[in-house]
Amino acid sequence: MKLNTTIAAIATPPGMGAIAVIRLSGEDAVSICEEIFLPAEKGLRLAELAVGSLHLGKIHDNSEIIDEVLLSIFRSPRSYTGEDIIEVSCHGSVYIQQKILQLLLDHGAEPAKPGEFTQRAFLNGKMDLSQAEAVADLIASGSAAFHKVAMQQMRGGFSGEIKNLRKQLLDFISLVELELDFSEEDVEFADRTELKVLVDTITAMLELLISSFSLGNALKNGIPVVIAGKPNTGKSTLLNKLLMEEKALVSEIPGTTRDSIEDVIHLEGISFRFIDTAGIHEATDKVEIMGIERTMEKIRQAGIILFMAEATDTAGHIDHLIEGLLEKTDFSDKTIILLLNKADLLKGKEDLPAERAADGTGGVEGRSGPSKSNKPAPGPDEGISIFNKQTFPALREKDHMLEISAKTGSGLEKLKSLLVSIIHHGRSIENDIIVTNIRHYHALSNAHEAAVRASTGLETALSGELLAMDIREVLYHLGEITGEITTDEILGNIFKNFCIGK
Amino acid sequence: MKLNTTIAAIATPPGMGAIAVIRLSGEDAVSICEEIFLPAEKGLRLAELAVGSLHLGKIHDNSEIIDEVLLSIFRSPRSYTGEDIIEVSCHGSVYIQQKILQLLLDHGAEPAKPGEFTQRAFLNGKMDLSQAEAVADLIASGSAAFHKVAMQQMRGGFSGEIKNLRKQLLDFISLVELELDFSEEDVEFADRTELKVLVDTITAMLELLISSFSLGNALKNGIPVVIAGKPNTGKSTLLNKLLMEEKALVSEIPGTTRDSIEDVIHLEGISFRFIDTAGIHEATDKVEIMGIERTMEKIRQAGIILFMAEATDTAGHIDHLIEGLLEKTDFSDKTIILLLNKADLLKGKEDLPAERAADGTGGVEGRSGPSKSNKPAPGPDEGISIFNKQTFPALREKDHMLEISAKTGSGLEKLKSLLVSIIHHGRSIENDIIVTNIRHYHALSNAHEAAVRASTGLETALSGELLAMDIREVLYHLGEITGEITTDEILGNIFKNFCIGK
Repeated sequence: MKLNTTIAAIATPPGMGAIAVIRLSGEDAVSICEEIFLPAEKGLRLAELAVGSLHLGKIHDNSEIIDEVLLSIFRSPRSYTGEDIIEVSCHGSVYIQQKILQLLLDHGAEPAKPGEFTQRAFLNGKMDLSQAEAVADLIASGSAAFHKVAMQQMRGGFSGEIKNLRKQLLDFISLVELELDFSEEDVEFADRTELKVLVDTITAMLELLISSFSLGNALKNGIPVVIAGKPNTGKSTLLNKLLMEEKALVSEIPGTTRDSIEDVIHLEGISFRFIDTAGIHEATDKVEIMGIERTMEKIRQAGIILFMAEATDTAGHIDHLIEGLLEKTDFSDKTIILLLNKADLLKGKEDLPAERAADGTGGVEGRSGPSKSNKPAPGPDEGISIFNKQTFPALREKDHMLEISAKTGSGLEKLKSLLVSIIHHGRSIENDIIVTNIRHYHALSNAHEAAVRASTGLETALSGELLAMDIREVLYHLGEITGEITTDEILGNIFKNFCIGK
Repeated sequence: MKLNTTIAAIATPPGMGAIAVIRLSGEDAVSICEEIFLPAEKGLRLAELAVGSLHLGKIHDNSEIIDEVLLSIFRSPRSYTGEDIIEVSCHGSVYIQQKILQLLLDHGAEPAKPGEFTQRAFLNGKMDLSQAEAVADLIASGSAAFHKVAMQQMRGGFSGEIKNLRKQLLDFISLVELELDFSEEDVEFADRTELKVLVDTITAMLELLISSFSLGNALKNGIPVVIAGKPNTGKSTLLNKLLMEEKALVSEIPGTTRDSIEDVIHLEGISFRFIDTAGIHEATDKVEIMGIERTMEKIRQAGIILFMAEATDTAGHIDHLIEGLLEKTDFSDKTIILLLNKADLLKGKEDLPAERAADGTGGVEGRSGPSKSNKPAPGPDEGISIFNKQTFPALREKDHMLEISAKTGSGLEKLKSLLVSIIHHGRSIENDIIVTNIRHYHALSNAHEAAVRASTGLETALSGELLAMDIREVLYHLGEITGEITTDEILGNIFKNFCIGK
């Protein structure tokens, strides 16, 4: 990574637009620009300009005028990269964009690699590594919720927490290591009780951060929600209703859906990737058997399974089907929502609430919010059932049961709220720090492991030397997150996923 | 067209990029921005800032931070539109772009219509209409040559010429109209001889401008070049060679090419749209007959026809084929280049130059340039033929003959030079004013018609009243070009083709 080159790239999205911006960073940025920029203001010298000024002029290639442009000038160290930066705002024709970039390269700039501007900002100490990573997340964010989390991380919320923990540990470890220098004298500078309290606090905070990753990952990558169940139970109808458009082929012939169909809906800023599947049953048709195998594959990748059953079916049979499903693969990280479809068929049968959670924590009744409290009481279509969750012993504590009508849409608002509450699991995007990056997740997990060892070591009066090793390991992994400890390989992996020009 | 609204739009190309720019113009631009912008510099007030300054800060939606941005401020009248303009340079996520635009709209801005920024620049007198039109051309320009012409027009080259002519005429017409006020006294303020000289000068200049339109239109829209000829003469092979890649299906079975295949190559900044066609012959197969009809349709739309014949064929037969082609449709605005293919078969047969123009004007030999003079003398594959242009009496003066080998590529460089020289026809993109806009072409043609009438009127001592009418008509049509004379309908038609944000 040479920092003494000057790099250039088109920074605006590719293609034609009203305007485009070409960005130049490095110690020769000003001198390169002076060779191809003719300022409108006579006698203006770019090298003499202060930070943060705008200048009208022309970009020329010898005698030919390429464009009339606006130049923004930022001087080191008060710039994004910490170097001199010039941004050329030109007319957005593809020809002009490429021609100006080519001119800059001809005059000594090098084409910027993906993320190289941000990488320089990191290397020049303008931001830490987790903030740099948040820049890429921010640009890629397609939902309000993920945008919020990325913005929080870019503004340093996450780093602050990590740096704070790290600093406190560093103070302690210095004392422990000082003891080692005086090992023959058997002194104890670091108060073990205080250290234990700190290590346990850190362990608890790491656990909180680690456990936030399932939400963070969901915000970043979306949640795969598989719609499964016996053939002809209205799975495609449900998907259509959810998508508010006809994406899945609906017919009355069982087994119509053989390929998996995917589409995304955003609920409270979280992307749910709905996947319709072929029905699971004892198929004889080869194509259908393949479809069922694909369904199981999709279920293995899913976070939430909407298991569709007909409310007209017997509870025992439905329970048996769920039992069968649970045997097929590992469901420990998955939540099942049993959907009893076609509730409209049962209208008025019995006066029971539509949904009952097995307990106050996992069920949707435990959730409340302003958007729900304004709703009218359930109408005649809703809230009437002969079933409740206890009817289905196969369902686990974290699973749910909900009665819907895919056809009329009754119960679907409840389903949407339930999906969101399962993902949030009590966390708030506004107030909690949420880990979205798998690299951070691994570093936090490694730090946590070492912290637990240190804590145990403190209980068993482990030697200062071994204790110091464990705590150094915690420090190391926390340092990986902010980039205080890093390697070229880690940097390469991080920045290669950026877009060019950032 | 309300000018008292404040308009906003995303100005950079659509999609995700490192950065994006959202543009705001109008009298409320500053006050709208102040509601959603939190400057990094404490106490900064946008309303107090001078033109051309850059400011770091945050865009917020109440308590939520949407992005960290850079604001560029331009104050009326020193801005693109002549109004207050603020450009928000933000992170280029689609979410952020749309969110910021939405915030601006929520705070009172209106979404800008296509070209509305440029339309305001025109209405506020920042540029004339032909310059405004050149802005759209500049953004759409995909070739060096069209970019050059659009840039020239945007910088006022074209308008200057028109305004100058118009001003001189206005001076004269005022004198002629003054005579009408004194009609009973039979005075003559305007010197008829001088006026005749001026009108004839204008007529000649209009003719020059009008005749430049064929080049201008070619630069703007490209030149359709049809490759026609008997089946199996190597048309597809030629196209492949020209495109340097396998686009057309090549086989040894005559009649392989039934559909028309199109592709573009850029020669000296001009786009040539090459169209391969089915061979023209007496077909019996229904599909082939349809293919031949399509070929004729393509020839009707073409500017240049490459007529492929085999050099091994007899001259008389080839001439007969050309005669037949010329009878099929109107060729007055088309140039034919007869290509004698498979020159490699004739290697060393006779020592004659490969190509002879019938005269010094139309033939490629009349053209010279630095790129040609550096070339080595023709090798054994080139420049040897038993034919010259006189061998084919059916060819007209402006047509050409060239011997090539589509297979080995010999003669293709000559063909490319010939294509460029036919389009340029002695005009220089660097030094001549070139009309590219069909609206301008029509206005110039109308002005020319009236100028010719005025000139004839001056010869026949037409009454001052009628003379004034003709000259007023010249002035009117010239005024249409620069926008001194315009209607809402004309403006609407012009700006609807702009991109949004410009």
